[in-house]
Amino acid sequence: MSPSEAGAGRPVRSGGRIEGFAAVVPAGGAGTRLWPLSRAGAPKFLHDLTGSGRSLLQATWDRLEPLAGADHLLLVTGRAHAAAVRAALPDLRDGNLLLEPSARDSMAAIGLAAAVLEHREGPGAVLGSFAADHVIDDDEAFGDAVAQAVATARAGEVVTIGISPTGPATQFGYIRSSAPLSVPGAPDALRVAEFVEKPDAATAAGYVATGDYRWNAGMFVVGAGVLLGHLHGQLPALADGLREIAAAWDSPSREQVLDAVWPSLVKIAIDHAIAEPVAAAGGVAVVPGSFGWDDVGDWDSLASLVPGAASQVAVLGDDAAVLGLAASGLVVAGSGVPGRTVSVLGVPDVVVVDTPDALLVTTREHAQSVKGLVGAWRERERDDLV
Amino acid sequence: MSPSEAGAGRPVRSGGRIEGFAAVVPAGGAGTRLWPLSRAGAPKFLHDLTGSGRSLLQATWDRLEPLAGADHLLLVTGRAHAAAVRAALPDLRDGNLLLEPSARDSMAAIGLAAAVLEHREGPGAVLGSFAADHVIDDDEAFGDAVAQAVATARAGEVVTIGISPTGPATQFGYIRSSAPLSVPGAPDALRVAEFVEKPDAATAAGYVATGDYRWNAGMFVVGAGVLLGHLHGQLPALADGLREIAAAWDSPSREQVLDAVWPSLVKIAIDHAIAEPVAAAGGVAVVPGSFGWDDVGDWDSLASLVPGAASQVAVLGDDAAVLGLAASGLVVAGSGVPGRTVSVLGVPDVVVVDTPDALLVTTREHAQSVKGLVGAWRERERDDLV
Repeated sequence: MSPSEAGAGRPVRSGGRIEGFAAVVPAGGAGTRLWPLSRAGAPKFLHDLTGSGRSLLQATWDRLEPLAGADHLLLVTGRAHAAAVRAALPDLRDGNLLLEPSARDSMAAIGLAAAVLEHREGPGAVLGSFAADHVIDDDEAFGDAVAQAVATARAGEVVTIGISPTGPATQFGYIRSSAPLSVPGAPDALRVAEFVEKPDAATAAGYVATGDYRWNAGMFVVGAGVLLGHLHGQLPALADGLREIAAAWDSPSREQVLDAVWPSLVKIAIDHAIAEPVAAAGGVAVVPGSFGWDDVGDWDSLASLVPGAASQVAVLGDDAAVLGLAASGLVVAGSGVPGRTVSVLGVPDVVVVDTPDALLVTTREHAQSVKGLVGAWRERERDDLV
Repeated sequence: MSPSEAGAGRPVRSGGRIEGFAAVVPAGGAGTRLWPLSRAGAPKFLHDLTGSGRSLLQATWDRLEPLAGADHLLLVTGRAHAAAVRAALPDLRDGNLLLEPSARDSMAAIGLAAAVLEHREGPGAVLGSFAADHVIDDDEAFGDAVAQAVATARAGEVVTIGISPTGPATQFGYIRSSAPLSVPGAPDALRVAEFVEKPDAATAAGYVATGDYRWNAGMFVVGAGVLLGHLHGQLPALADGLREIAAAWDSPSREQVLDAVWPSLVKIAIDHAIAEPVAAAGGVAVVPGSFGWDDVGDWDSLASLVPGAASQVAVLGDDAAVLGLAASGLVVAGSGVPGRTVSVLGVPDVVVVDTPDALLVTTREHAQSVKGLVGAWRERERDDLV
């Protein structure tokens, strides 16, 4: 099937590219709750947290490259991570590495990529934004959801992919849907009624029981012109600033304009700038995603992704280096010292993270409190650890 | 007060030497339950387990040297530990370092020292045997108990120092006393009725309530001739073999005779060879010791010796390298890596032992099971760790 056969309907898939689609990967956030593996200088997305041999960033590239093509894969990250990202992704085009002079939150990051695409390819270009540090287990189902989302975006919608919940999770926000849409090529697309915050357990159970709620994975698919149009309506100075940078991006004045304009841009998340207000106005759609997904938000979340952690000590790293007796949970063997071993005796749901300069011992139950350790080390003036 | 003023009564003390007394320190045992700090190649007695800056062996020397004098301090250990012991104890006389060709248990070790002393100084020399890896917190009270024990030994008794129990411990054997003795210079000495094995908790509570039971700390004070006489009665070949080695000890044929005789010596503990049978025959006395004592048998025991471990994370090593939040117990910071840190979050009664090649994570409750880890690593052919 050629692009012309797909027509205005479902974009070409069948294992290949989605024509006219660009993938944007904002790679930000320190992943503090995954300390001490994740650090400010080597954040979560640079680590192989699944034992696959590829970092989360590389796995994200591997998932998106077949859909968008290397030329249409844009990465937005802080200047500090430029070298690490280039080393991790040798096929990333230099002009597609968008280095932020300072952190300006997700709206500026994704908006800059949208503006660059709009400038290069016109307002009809469709972008999909996907975090650099999430885990997805069914690339085929993911690709199908993206294809439906692109079709829906071409109809002018701001589209999100909502994850079909496997349980009443309290660590994610939810997306409530209303009526089905009738977009060609997107049979599963639904109107979004609202985005809701992370619920308590009882509320989450109620959400899941209705069948109308999906997890908000922060995936947005939208036409570049549509996105910047909405942004201009809400925050015109931000939209104008991003377009000014984009106009200079593929020219010798890139850095000069970037440095002049970027500091003035407002810090705001795309959820607040676009998703919530546009949803309230009836302009957001959701494509349900039935693939396995996790944001790997903390050690407990990671342990749930590693087979066996519930009944024994699962290992990220060299299995032969770890011994568990009367114990369960997760050991990250990351000391870098050849032959070094970890023994766990009689601690259920343990989390041990062994890195060269920092060892963490906790339990899955306390995973959310790891941030407190990072703060405490800062207070002790051990910024080298964080 | 001069030795002559002391006469046949209480030996000279008052901060000085006990005349005619020699201290014997058998330094054996791998201390497996203190793995991974204690190893076959670097056993418990070579480690500073109290943060004093001195190893347990050195602290034992420091405690005994004022009582016996360096010339009358004998150390018995395996040949493998010769270099480490010489480095730790530079004042130890070469002829007083008794290196065992192989392990033959405590009777051969202490008996050899007794035979060497008997050969050098005659059967009236009194020896006191004290483990190299126990902790004692009141040297003055210890010295007073030793002096009373020496006085009692001079009356022909096999003497033990029994520790006044601070609670119904189940990890120690007990000594039951009967009537007071009337030995000049030993006002506290009592006849020993029997030695009893480690009790269960209810039995231990009953023992302590009677006031007649004290902890068996394995301390024996006895005349060299008396000891070898009893030994000859029980195990004549062993006594003869030890005397044969001793006769050659301070001569050029030491090694030749040692290597010829030692392998034939029977392996038996002094408790079974001497203490129990002689007690049954009414020949053992006990001097109560009111000083603090612990055999530091496992990590739980060690944690109880380190201030604060019940309510917070106590540290053996660099305090600044360890952070505990909502945790208690003991962290041994022994990685040897400068700046390396340990963080414990939400684990009560934790035990973390961080050594260069082996990290242990457990809880005080599981301290007795650490041996199982050592066995499991052996099964994995990691003899380098044990």
